[in-house]
Amino acid sequence: MAQKPSIPKGTRDFSPAEVAKRNYIFSTIKTNFEKFGFQPIETPSFENSETLMGKYGEEGDRLIFKILNSGDYFSTFNRALAVYFKVVFSRVIKEIYKDSDLNSVERFKEILTSKDFIDFIVEEVNKTKNEEYKIQDFYNDSLKKLLEDQIDFLKNSNLLNQLFEEKSNVVGEYDFDNNKKLQSLIDNLVENTLGKWLKNVDSKDLTKQISEKALRYDLTVPFARYVVQHQNEIEFPFKRYQIQPVWRADRPQKGRFREFYQCDADVVGSNSLWQEVELVQLYDSVFSQLGLGGVTIKINNRKILSGIAEVIGASDKLIDFTVALDKLDKIGEDGVKKEMLEKGISETAIEKVQPLFNFTGTINEKIEKLANLLANSEEGMKGVNELQFICDNVTTLGLQTAFLDLDVTLARGLNYYTGAIFEVAAPKGVAMGSIGGGGRYDDLTGIFGLKNMSGVGISFGLDRIALVMEEVGLFPEAVLATSKALFLNFGDKEALYAMKAIGKLRQKGIKVELYPDKSKIDKQFKHADRRGIPFAVIVGESEMEREEFGLKNLATGEQQKVDFATLVTLLQ
Amino acid sequence: MAQKPSIPKGTRDFSPAEVAKRNYIFSTIKTNFEKFGFQPIETPSFENSETLMGKYGEEGDRLIFKILNSGDYFSTFNRALAVYFKVVFSRVIKEIYKDSDLNSVERFKEILTSKDFIDFIVEEVNKTKNEEYKIQDFYNDSLKKLLEDQIDFLKNSNLLNQLFEEKSNVVGEYDFDNNKKLQSLIDNLVENTLGKWLKNVDSKDLTKQISEKALRYDLTVPFARYVVQHQNEIEFPFKRYQIQPVWRADRPQKGRFREFYQCDADVVGSNSLWQEVELVQLYDSVFSQLGLGGVTIKINNRKILSGIAEVIGASDKLIDFTVALDKLDKIGEDGVKKEMLEKGISETAIEKVQPLFNFTGTINEKIEKLANLLANSEEGMKGVNELQFICDNVTTLGLQTAFLDLDVTLARGLNYYTGAIFEVAAPKGVAMGSIGGGGRYDDLTGIFGLKNMSGVGISFGLDRIALVMEEVGLFPEAVLATSKALFLNFGDKEALYAMKAIGKLRQKGIKVELYPDKSKIDKQFKHADRRGIPFAVIVGESEMEREEFGLKNLATGEQQKVDFATLVTLLQ
Repeated sequence: MAQKPSIPKGTRDFSPAEVAKRNYIFSTIKTNFEKFGFQPIETPSFENSETLMGKYGEEGDRLIFKILNSGDYFSTFNRALAVYFKVVFSRVIKEIYKDSDLNSVERFKEILTSKDFIDFIVEEVNKTKNEEYKIQDFYNDSLKKLLEDQIDFLKNSNLLNQLFEEKSNVVGEYDFDNNKKLQSLIDNLVENTLGKWLKNVDSKDLTKQISEKALRYDLTVPFARYVVQHQNEIEFPFKRYQIQPVWRADRPQKGRFREFYQCDADVVGSNSLWQEVELVQLYDSVFSQLGLGGVTIKINNRKILSGIAEVIGASDKLIDFTVALDKLDKIGEDGVKKEMLEKGISETAIEKVQPLFNFTGTINEKIEKLANLLANSEEGMKGVNELQFICDNVTTLGLQTAFLDLDVTLARGLNYYTGAIFEVAAPKGVAMGSIGGGGRYDDLTGIFGLKNMSGVGISFGLDRIALVMEEVGLFPEAVLATSKALFLNFGDKEALYAMKAIGKLRQKGIKVELYPDKSKIDKQFKHADRRGIPFAVIVGESEMEREEFGLKNLATGEQQKVDFATLVTLLQ
Repeated sequence: MAQKPSIPKGTRDFSPAEVAKRNYIFSTIKTNFEKFGFQPIETPSFENSETLMGKYGEEGDRLIFKILNSGDYFSTFNRALAVYFKVVFSRVIKEIYKDSDLNSVERFKEILTSKDFIDFIVEEVNKTKNEEYKIQDFYNDSLKKLLEDQIDFLKNSNLLNQLFEEKSNVVGEYDFDNNKKLQSLIDNLVENTLGKWLKNVDSKDLTKQISEKALRYDLTVPFARYVVQHQNEIEFPFKRYQIQPVWRADRPQKGRFREFYQCDADVVGSNSLWQEVELVQLYDSVFSQLGLGGVTIKINNRKILSGIAEVIGASDKLIDFTVALDKLDKIGEDGVKKEMLEKGISETAIEKVQPLFNFTGTINEKIEKLANLLANSEEGMKGVNELQFICDNVTTLGLQTAFLDLDVTLARGLNYYTGAIFEVAAPKGVAMGSIGGGGRYDDLTGIFGLKNMSGVGISFGLDRIALVMEEVGLFPEAVLATSKALFLNFGDKEALYAMKAIGKLRQKGIKVELYPDKSKIDKQFKHADRRGIPFAVIVGESEMEREEFGLKNLATGEQQKVDFATLVTLLQ
């Protein structure tokens, strides 16, 4: 039965034309990365879950694609869980049976809540340590709660009566393990417990048990992991670039995909601000070479944002503040102030940062305004000085086509960036969000145990750059180059003659091909046309006799007979 | 708490040197693919599970990496299952209550096994069709069996007595849904059933419920899917290449990884044997350009193997036959015959294929032997003719450095190849399995509903090629090129001067970089040395005054003062 073929939502097939265009961008970025001294690394598509989980916030954790353990992953787990419940309940009931005073639910409760009993459970859990499946990893609060509930259930159920009844049948030593009736009662209890667990288990808890790997979510965390893991082989400062796909289980929408490429360049192991200067130049160099002149490289500094937070006296309102301020062009000063007040920023605070409402002029003028505003904030002044260094040197060295601008509302990556923050806006007139971004993070590798490794890097948004280039029409025609000529097929004898020429042309690096079948000539011409191949080469009997080639320009219709040397010249 | 960083077994990090070497191979393959008229496509890393499952045999299905559905995938499933059990059991018990004759276990059994009741279950299952979670997909044999078991359990349990008891309390119309006692009895039954399910469920059954996507296992099935999905946009014959990673949950071992690249070139939509001729040339062209002269391109044909199977009269013994024959060099004619007899191939059959035991000479001589041997097999003679065409034309056109050889023991891909079979062996003296392979499959896209699309293609084994090239020492030194020069950092003033020169050099495409920090000069020299950067550029105060640069060759120690123009010349 045939399946109607489709691909998962949020993913894409790329046709030859699309691949060619994307490769043109990749290759431009790559060439520039290398020109600036960055070297490529590659990391695996999936990482151990613990490498990724907890690094992107709760939302990030949810959006990471998890990979199922291979083999019979679930049987290992559910069998271990069943064994575990059985051990626990057997022990509970054994305790009850051993206790000669036990004749009330109260005494029963006493046993179940005793420290001894809890200690016992922990002990039993630890015993499973050496088994293949480590159930103790799963002995978390939700399981504890479940057991407590089941003990409640046991107290109120008919089962308890049956257990007592069974006990009263016995005289002397009780053969606990071989009493079929008793074991079946316990089995039922175990199954009921498993069922309750299944009814209520959270996917997040289960995932930990059945998945140990996850697809990479970005390139930064794998890079940090790489640096720590290979720290003894790496020569610092380490300038690395990485161009690989990442995966996010985001809701797909226009321009947002579940699989997409990131193109990152980072330096790790140096605090030098010359890196920031170079990264601005790198953006300029790439976009200039792509023909995308006039992008704006917006720069800000985390320390300036901290300074502003100090001035407005509310660091928890910083995002509200920048978001509101960013709307200045749209809703005007009054609108922004209204929004700030609504968000709980005081009138006094807003007055103090009044200069930000008239934040125009050259970068140097803006920096001066900031210096006045933040004069009393040590942190803020550090940011001003850093900004000054970067802007001065970028200005002195000059940019090819990009503009550098200071934007104090730029607050991306507020949670991890500690110094410079970058964002690139498409040229004016092109409606598109940011096409690149980055910044400095003082403790890139700390999460993996390597302290004091400052990192700074930038990223290129491939998909958006491609969209912009398509819109503006910046892809050179040569990018799409298919074969230069199609040799038509008039039969095996003629094809062999053609193949001799084709072999020699290919050795000269000229892309040519033979139409594989002896189809109608019209069909063959049409094939060349549809493929965008500019020339057709005709090799019939007469051409073979005269050692000639008929060369037809498919755009003009012009046709001529040429010898091989001329053919080479015309197709080169 | 710091984690000790590691990567999943069977995966690899690639350092800059490794990436450079691999890219050298990729780029050589890519250039040749394009020279031969192939165009690149790319497909998503994960496909819908139904696209991949069942295409690689049972072992393949097991080795496919499955991706967990995102969000609260399990809660949807287990809640639906609980609801489902509840519906079923409620109905069972309602039936019992409705039946005024019911006063024996026998009558109860009758109801449970009636056609009506089974029909009811199916109906209930279908009712859930429009719900978010499609439990009916899961209504398979194992679930049916479980329900039967539970009904058995119900019959024998105390629960049945309680249910009867509860009924006898009632006079007149029974308020089934609001009877707390009864509902709690049913809940217990549901939980017990869920528990039994959990204890026994197979991971394979569960996987279908919680995973809908899987990482691609090869490039051929996604390509087939691509061709069918985009058949209206594709101009046939379609020559595509694809260089992307694939993933297999194989047990990792030396040279076998869980993530690795495949490099495939295929033509789909033409039966022409010229394609086979070109693919042999393509292998020759790539390996020659890589400097890997002397590889052997082994060729065989599925139809010849069918012919041999006819002659030995046992098509089910074909693999045993070729495996044994392949050992001719190692264990001699007697050894091979002994093994064949052990495998159940008759002495008469072995006598008939005697020529294969002395299967030497040129390709043409070998083809002649085959023609005699297979004269009575129509299928076999088709194979002989195809082989003759390919070999004749390859020979006439000539190969650069590779050898073409006919190997009748070549039986790779026997399950899907229908015509030519290829395999490439590393040059003599290099111990390595095949470094490439391929063949023709007459019905590539049939599994996705597009019939009569013949495909033929070859694949390059990147990892093995890289190992061979490393062993033979074939990577050019230029592959590893880092920056050409490191500008030493004597302070911000000097660094700015250096950056001016660096900017101009980069614009000329020369890779240079600035040491970012004003560290001890020794440390900076050492950095250049460790990075393999051949030159250091010294810009101190005196150089700045004279507008000069100190250029030190780090290999020879030679140092000279040069002006900018000379610097460009020396670093170019």
